[in-house]
Amino acid sequence: MVRVVQYGIGPIGLEVVRVLLSKQSTGEVKLVGIVDVDPQKIGRDVGELLSTGTTGVVVSGDADACLAEHRPDVVIHSTSSFIDVVGDQLLQCVDAGSHVISSTEELSFPDGQSDGFVARLDKACKDNGVVVLGTGVNPGYAMDALAVMATAPCTRVDSIQVERAVDAGRRRGPLQRKIGAGLTPAQFAEKKATGRFGHIGLMQSLRLVADALGFEPEQMSETLEPAIADRQIRTDFVTVDEGAVAGIHQVAVAKAGGRARIRLELKMAVGVSPSIDRVVVEGDPPIDLRIEGGIFGDTATVGALVNAIPNVMSAEPGFKRVIDLPVGRAFAALR
Amino acid sequence: MVRVVQYGIGPIGLEVVRVLLSKQSTGEVKLVGIVDVDPQKIGRDVGELLSTGTTGVVVSGDADACLAEHRPDVVIHSTSSFIDVVGDQLLQCVDAGSHVISSTEELSFPDGQSDGFVARLDKACKDNGVVVLGTGVNPGYAMDALAVMATAPCTRVDSIQVERAVDAGRRRGPLQRKIGAGLTPAQFAEKKATGRFGHIGLMQSLRLVADALGFEPEQMSETLEPAIADRQIRTDFVTVDEGAVAGIHQVAVAKAGGRARIRLELKMAVGVSPSIDRVVVEGDPPIDLRIEGGIFGDTATVGALVNAIPNVMSAEPGFKRVIDLPVGRAFAALR
Repeated sequence: MVRVVQYGIGPIGLEVVRVLLSKQSTGEVKLVGIVDVDPQKIGRDVGELLSTGTTGVVVSGDADACLAEHRPDVVIHSTSSFIDVVGDQLLQCVDAGSHVISSTEELSFPDGQSDGFVARLDKACKDNGVVVLGTGVNPGYAMDALAVMATAPCTRVDSIQVERAVDAGRRRGPLQRKIGAGLTPAQFAEKKATGRFGHIGLMQSLRLVADALGFEPEQMSETLEPAIADRQIRTDFVTVDEGAVAGIHQVAVAKAGGRARIRLELKMAVGVSPSIDRVVVEGDPPIDLRIEGGIFGDTATVGALVNAIPNVMSAEPGFKRVIDLPVGRAFAALR
Repeated sequence: MVRVVQYGIGPIGLEVVRVLLSKQSTGEVKLVGIVDVDPQKIGRDVGELLSTGTTGVVVSGDADACLAEHRPDVVIHSTSSFIDVVGDQLLQCVDAGSHVISSTEELSFPDGQSDGFVARLDKACKDNGVVVLGTGVNPGYAMDALAVMATAPCTRVDSIQVERAVDAGRRRGPLQRKIGAGLTPAQFAEKKATGRFGHIGLMQSLRLVADALGFEPEQMSETLEPAIADRQIRTDFVTVDEGAVAGIHQVAVAKAGGRARIRLELKMAVGVSPSIDRVVVEGDPPIDLRIEGGIFGDTATVGALVNAIPNVMSAEPGFKRVIDLPVGRAFAALR
């Protein structure tokens, strides 16, 4: 039985807790502790926060104490998108001897700026005999691992195009705000200028695909534009007027020989229809893979995190990316 | 650079050779030898058989001599669907210190009858520090690994349905004969009674999916029926009259609690339209994955075999199934 601590119970972490609790009856996994910084949550039984019955698992504000008390096999970590924010948290878990599965988008394929930290993290993993993995549904699956897997039968690959269209109106409120739904185009431009706006992880997905295929691009680039509403759109969380920002339209491209060889296109906006995930491989054989209706991200992120448990438990110690580990699969899910 | 011997140059093996030769310019792989039993092929430069220029690689009729001379890193093996036919060939390669990637369908998930052989093979692998993998497009990908991968974002799986519809009229001649195209229903029944007719590997795919998900079915069963032509169908290789057999319709089911939890359905017949691969996961989130036009099997089998090279090279020694190794991906294919 795998003993798990959930680190961070924002919308994703709280759903991880719900899923872990639902799987406890299989005897394969047990939620032993929860860490969060929110004073409104600390000290409360997580069952209250989930509006279910009492669970006996109380939210701790002291990560070190929680890790020392429960000595979890695995920490599922979901606190921030950025390595510089989560670095100490990850090291804390590793030093406590726990594997870590983190939703930190930048961690799915750290860029050169993080080389020093990643080397330190990798060494700490090896010293403690544990694995740290950055994953989730995007980055981690929909626009990278799935695309890589789509090439498994190909003898030749000329190009790969990945498209993910998400009707954000069906997603959680924070996500709708995160993509700028309801902003004016000028407000969108201001947010974009901060460099910490839009979907975090598209360049990581691009690098995951390129690296998995042993492809060294001559050039990689990313663009971010607002998706503009062509009519008024209302969701449970926001009203977007015609001409206002409905969400994001983000494209990342890896080129060689002047040609786009890998192209990832993400449309995430309220009112997008239909939602779809698509991977088109030009090559031999050609592959036209579609997930009709798309992969529903809120649940899928939770699934991707929880389903990584067996993979981190059986991998060699060190820092890993999703493309370094076996095929992902549902864990304790078909019973 | 990975040095490869191709063992068996029927239609699939010959295409493996063609693909390996095409990848030699990447410097990642080199075809160093070929083994076959056909007196018409032995002693000839494989370039003659491919109708390309001279390659310098001559077909050998003596596997031991070929392996001893070239000491390949990897043998790609495609001679028969059945473990009892290929057992000695596999051990021969392993004893020569080579990894083996085999298209032997039964090997993708050996059943209980082969326990003794598999234990011996696994021990030989470990003694020699090599890996033996049974793979291909089906079994090995389309109806198993792809289905497993489809569950990676799922927090709950209620059932999995896999459908593969193949217009065999577009496939190679031996495959059209293998599925009985042109037979009368009575001839089909006779062939079926031999127990070595139809698609070999559907039960293996069923076990791969169940095992990967940690699911222990209460019951597993398989049916094989003829697909009957509703009109006359002509291909380059066969003419099928109305009412004659166009191919196979094969279904494998794993049940628990009286319900089909995993269902694999294969239609492989001349005149099937459209070709498609589909994986439907009922669960949370639900997944409706389609490969429009299907995965073209003749090329894809070759791709699956060649693309397994990096995976067997980096795995721990032993006998492996596709679900034991990292995500498949195109090898030396995007350059």
